Amino acid sequence: MSSHRQKSGKSGSERRSGSLSVKNQTNGVWLYGYHAVAAALQNPQRKIYRLLLSKETAAELPQKLIPAGLNYESTGRAEFEQLLPKGAVHQGIAAYVSVLPCVFEEDLPEKSPSVIVILDQVTDPHNVGAVMRSAAAFEADAVIITERNAPEATGALAKSASGALELVPLITVSNLARTMQFLKDRGYWCVGMDGSAEKTLRDAALPRKIALVMGSEGYGLRRLTAQNCDFMVKLPISERVESLNVSNAAAIALYDLKYKLAQ
Amino acid sequence: MSSHRQKSGKSGSERRSGSLSVKNQTNGVWLYGYHAVAAALQNPQRKIYRLLLSKETAAELPQKLIPAGLNYESTGRAEFEQLLPKGAVHQGIAAYVSVLPCVFEEDLPEKSPSVIVILDQVTDPHNVGAVMRSAAAFEADAVIITERNAPEATGALAKSASGALELVPLITVSNLARTMQFLKDRGYWCVGMDGSAEKTLRDAALPRKIALVMGSEGYGLRRLTAQNCDFMVKLPISERVESLNVSNAAAIALYDLKYKLAQ
Repeated sequence: MSSHRQKSGKSGSERRSGSLSVKNQTNGVWLYGYHAVAAALQNPQRKIYRLLLSKETAAELPQKLIPAGLNYESTGRAEFEQLLPKGAVHQGIAAYVSVLPCVFEEDLPEKSPSVIVILDQVTDPHNVGAVMRSAAAFEADAVIITERNAPEATGALAKSASGALELVPLITVSNLARTMQFLKDRGYWCVGMDGSAEKTLRDAALPRKIALVMGSEGYGLRRLTAQNCDFMVKLPISERVESLNVSNAAAIALYDLKYKLAQ
Repeated sequence: MSSHRQKSGKSGSERRSGSLSVKNQTNGVWLYGYHAVAAALQNPQRKIYRLLLSKETAAELPQKLIPAGLNYESTGRAEFEQLLPKGAVHQGIAAYVSVLPCVFEEDLPEKSPSVIVILDQVTDPHNVGAVMRSAAAFEADAVIITERNAPEATGALAKSASGALELVPLITVSNLARTMQFLKDRGYWCVGMDGSAEKTLRDAALPRKIALVMGSEGYGLRRLTAQNCDFMVKLPISERVESLNVSNAAAIALYDLKYKLAQ
């Protein structure tokens, strides 16, 4: 692996200099994939410790995306495979970056209308990432996940989020009931998505501050989580199908709420 | 791996008898995951050559799902891993089944309203599978994919489709322009989804027979495909985000069309 100073070709003596001397710090995470890394490079809250580019990606990546003074490392296929998880779709770009500062529900600004997504024990990183991406697209104010079995905000999750990790706070909580109560105290109504609800999302009269609560695939909402919801709504799906993919259901709900709350 | 006749415990001499003697025929495919296999077991168009169950799944699977006369094989973790692709989330259930009969666009019944999804070079099997699942949920009449780089209707695609492969025809075509013309001749309007469209899906006045055309992630619609569309529509996403995941965009569009066409 060789490193390159942006624009000028520097000598080997500068390799691993500057940011590159910081190797896999324990407080960093790997991101990979074009959108995930490009968004991180533009996020002032991220420290970029290492940037790995294939020859092809280095040629295509707009120079202005590479932070001033950062050396990137020209990286071959085998080296990507060695550094990243097996099967990672890295598209010839990866970065070792600082984790984002923790955001707590208490940090969220007061806002109305507002939509927050709560994922109750959704463990698949692709699903959480895709929900983050839709949350950014439809301007939700946060995505909240439960600590237990929660996927890490790196790798596959970041790749599926396609840059949305830098745009929407991903908040991890240990006690979902407490968080739901906190949100209620702040004026949010907890709206559970459940196939057995009476009303569809489209038909339900909903308030302006909504915490949309979605359960894990296969198990749905936990009993206690459902009890803590103020309303339940469903999507109008065929009886032949048990449920939608959770990220698909979230995308639909966020889309519909965007129109509902604009009225 | 041992085999069990349904309900009664038969002797070892019956192992590998009946359907089980047919081993990995070249015209079969592996399906895995609870919903994918359970739906296939209920589809009279599928021949079931082998059914593999973990002890736990065998105990939970409703007996009526197992076709009369089919022996299942009690299968351990290592054997699943040996038979299925690396990383397959099989949930202790897999089946080797006949491929479904080919469906051609010419086979589709005349219907109005009708929605068909066309995926132009979408190669990720999870995405195609999730689109199939949404297509079943919102009663689309078919999903059409392009032959080039198309994922096979097995494994990860079938798992993500969660049984929808048995409900919605997945049609593979080699010449998308010809298929679009065929659909137009049958009264369909080709509606392309593209972020640069002027009108949103919600605001566009649309006809009753729609072929919804979606491009690959990263590249969007190919030029020729876009040219062959009658309309282009977009979803109202934030400027901070380039696009949605293709299966999320399809889910939203199918959901909205369900309401639009019911009016």
